[in-house]
Amino acid sequence: MNFEIEKIDNKSSARAATITTDHGKIQTPIFMPVGTAASVKAVHQTELKNDINAEIILGNTYHLYLRPKTDILEKVGGIHKFINWDRPILTDSGGYQVYSLSANRKIKEEGVKFRSHIDGSTHFFSPEFSMDIQRSIGADIIMAFDECTPYPCDYTYAKNSMMMTHRWLDRCLLHLKEKPEKYNYKQSFFPIVQGSTYKDLRKQSAEYIANVGAEGNAIGGLSVGEPAEEMYEMTELVCNILPKEKPRYLMGVGTPINILENIALGVDMFDCVMPTRNARNGMLFTAHGSINIKNKKWEDDFSPIDEMNITFVDTYYSKAYLRHLFAAKEYLGKQIATIHNLGFYLWLVREARKHILAGDFIEWKNIMVEQMDKRL
Amino acid sequence: MNFEIEKIDNKSSARAATITTDHGKIQTPIFMPVGTAASVKAVHQTELKNDINAEIILGNTYHLYLRPKTDILEKVGGIHKFINWDRPILTDSGGYQVYSLSANRKIKEEGVKFRSHIDGSTHFFSPEFSMDIQRSIGADIIMAFDECTPYPCDYTYAKNSMMMTHRWLDRCLLHLKEKPEKYNYKQSFFPIVQGSTYKDLRKQSAEYIANVGAEGNAIGGLSVGEPAEEMYEMTELVCNILPKEKPRYLMGVGTPINILENIALGVDMFDCVMPTRNARNGMLFTAHGSINIKNKKWEDDFSPIDEMNITFVDTYYSKAYLRHLFAAKEYLGKQIATIHNLGFYLWLVREARKHILAGDFIEWKNIMVEQMDKRL
Repeated sequence: MNFEIEKIDNKSSARAATITTDHGKIQTPIFMPVGTAASVKAVHQTELKNDINAEIILGNTYHLYLRPKTDILEKVGGIHKFINWDRPILTDSGGYQVYSLSANRKIKEEGVKFRSHIDGSTHFFSPEFSMDIQRSIGADIIMAFDECTPYPCDYTYAKNSMMMTHRWLDRCLLHLKEKPEKYNYKQSFFPIVQGSTYKDLRKQSAEYIANVGAEGNAIGGLSVGEPAEEMYEMTELVCNILPKEKPRYLMGVGTPINILENIALGVDMFDCVMPTRNARNGMLFTAHGSINIKNKKWEDDFSPIDEMNITFVDTYYSKAYLRHLFAAKEYLGKQIATIHNLGFYLWLVREARKHILAGDFIEWKNIMVEQMDKRL
Repeated sequence: MNFEIEKIDNKSSARAATITTDHGKIQTPIFMPVGTAASVKAVHQTELKNDINAEIILGNTYHLYLRPKTDILEKVGGIHKFINWDRPILTDSGGYQVYSLSANRKIKEEGVKFRSHIDGSTHFFSPEFSMDIQRSIGADIIMAFDECTPYPCDYTYAKNSMMMTHRWLDRCLLHLKEKPEKYNYKQSFFPIVQGSTYKDLRKQSAEYIANVGAEGNAIGGLSVGEPAEEMYEMTELVCNILPKEKPRYLMGVGTPINILENIALGVDMFDCVMPTRNARNGMLFTAHGSINIKNKKWEDDFSPIDEMNITFVDTYYSKAYLRHLFAAKEYLGKQIATIHNLGFYLWLVREARKHILAGDFIEWKNIMVEQMDKRL
């Protein structure tokens, strides 16, 4: 993996760069649509490519391990072939879903025992096993097995958890050193900074992670319920410690505004279920604010979904029609809203990149943040 | 509306023809995807046009009347504009859904009183009101308000119902004579032959309907549970009476085999929820038989969904991937299966047309019927 910075903003820490993987280039800042169970919900891979212009998508190790299972993914030669997607893919470590979705989870030094949310079967994830699953899945970027602490989290728990995350990181690294990739392309490993919302812990964790010398670094444990200001404070602190010459990935973030603010702080990569999940609930993001398309006010509004026409759905279908599809619980409603929201998120990061390169990122960002903070 | 026959088969009653409406041409035999509530479930209008090659789609008056309601459709200027579909559309009369979906329905000479399946509200459909709703919806082809008898149906009920359907037809015609179209294009009216599975009633009804001199004629009350042989017997009898120079529409039919057999008997137009509904349940139709994609046998079958590659999904995605999507209850599974099935149905009628024009329809049909009658 190669990371080449094209420009660093004068008035902020925003950067425009290019990541090169064996499955192609990613121009940053980038947003990665979440394809939990080997599918970005309700959209075709062809739409992700041609309409949304996704440059990299994310898969969830926990889900892929349970279904379709690693033996199927190994048989076909990895996730890219399974889903027919030739651009980069990133997988998380499975930890987050184990904590949030599974039942009866028990976290110990050795790893995490849990029950599947699908059939109640018992499973055990260790740092080593998470690496093995991710090697079988075959994403271009794989993540360290960590504990993502909840918010709020008391100091002692946050500190002990962070220390364990660091020990787990060492085990991941040691394991990967001994185990080569399973397919004929490189998998890059990103460690994860933890430390909840405690500055000293975040500093300590960022230093530990920076010291590892990985190809890219991630910030975890944010966007879990803390106020946005606290998130930005942590991101800023951590970005100032993580190496400049490596991509920085802020996990699970966030709203369009969160994304722009964190780009200003030096983050290059984002993922979040918000554009897809909210789409399925009828909530649309636009450059001029958010829309609850289920509202009666759109019933006879035959104007395009979004005049900006970022994706074909925006002017092909009207607000009134989309509202009707949600009222009638038609699948097409979710499909249209998902394409719209993902198209908008990808447009937003492309625009951010343009403005970083043009040198007016902060001015543009400030206008956009104000503009997007509305309900239409 | 214009109907031009290009060829009548030498060895059967199959015909290749072209229907011309104000929204363009339809080459027959044709299958019409069902877009119940202003959406062919789980597919984009763009996919219907570009991938599936649908030439005409169907809407359900009952559903459109309840949602989005006729005032919305009138405001926007009709269903074509509402859904952004510039090709022909056909609406049924609402009768069938009133009988099958609504609660507490009471059929009287004047019309049918029923409760909405959505909110329990009370409504009343008469022949005149069905015409008015269909005028507001604005389909290119609108259907007579009839009673569709169930199977089996005792002779007296079938006869009385048929007589009422004929009286209702007269009321539809009278009403339409007085009421012009609401939009700037022609709506063609099709009456419906009833008579259950009784030859004498079918004969009587076909003669009554033929005598009306409508622009096209429909056969209703079949594919409601009767054996296929009985359906074919009725279709044959009715097609021999209905005028040759007008299109014949067999309502609610059917399997790929049913469609080919009825084309041979002289039917030009078909609609059915089978390709879309079965798709959403994981059942795929192919030229070599049907596939239950949920079966474990496809788990590690990485071959294309359908080597014939009629639509892009057929070779873009594998059987194993599609099976996984159904196992994981991913929307994309329903989307892929729907495009596949509709693409196949449209391919089948296009092929039928080609073979009618080439003069070898019956030979081809017999091979196809045998081939498709398998479970893969």
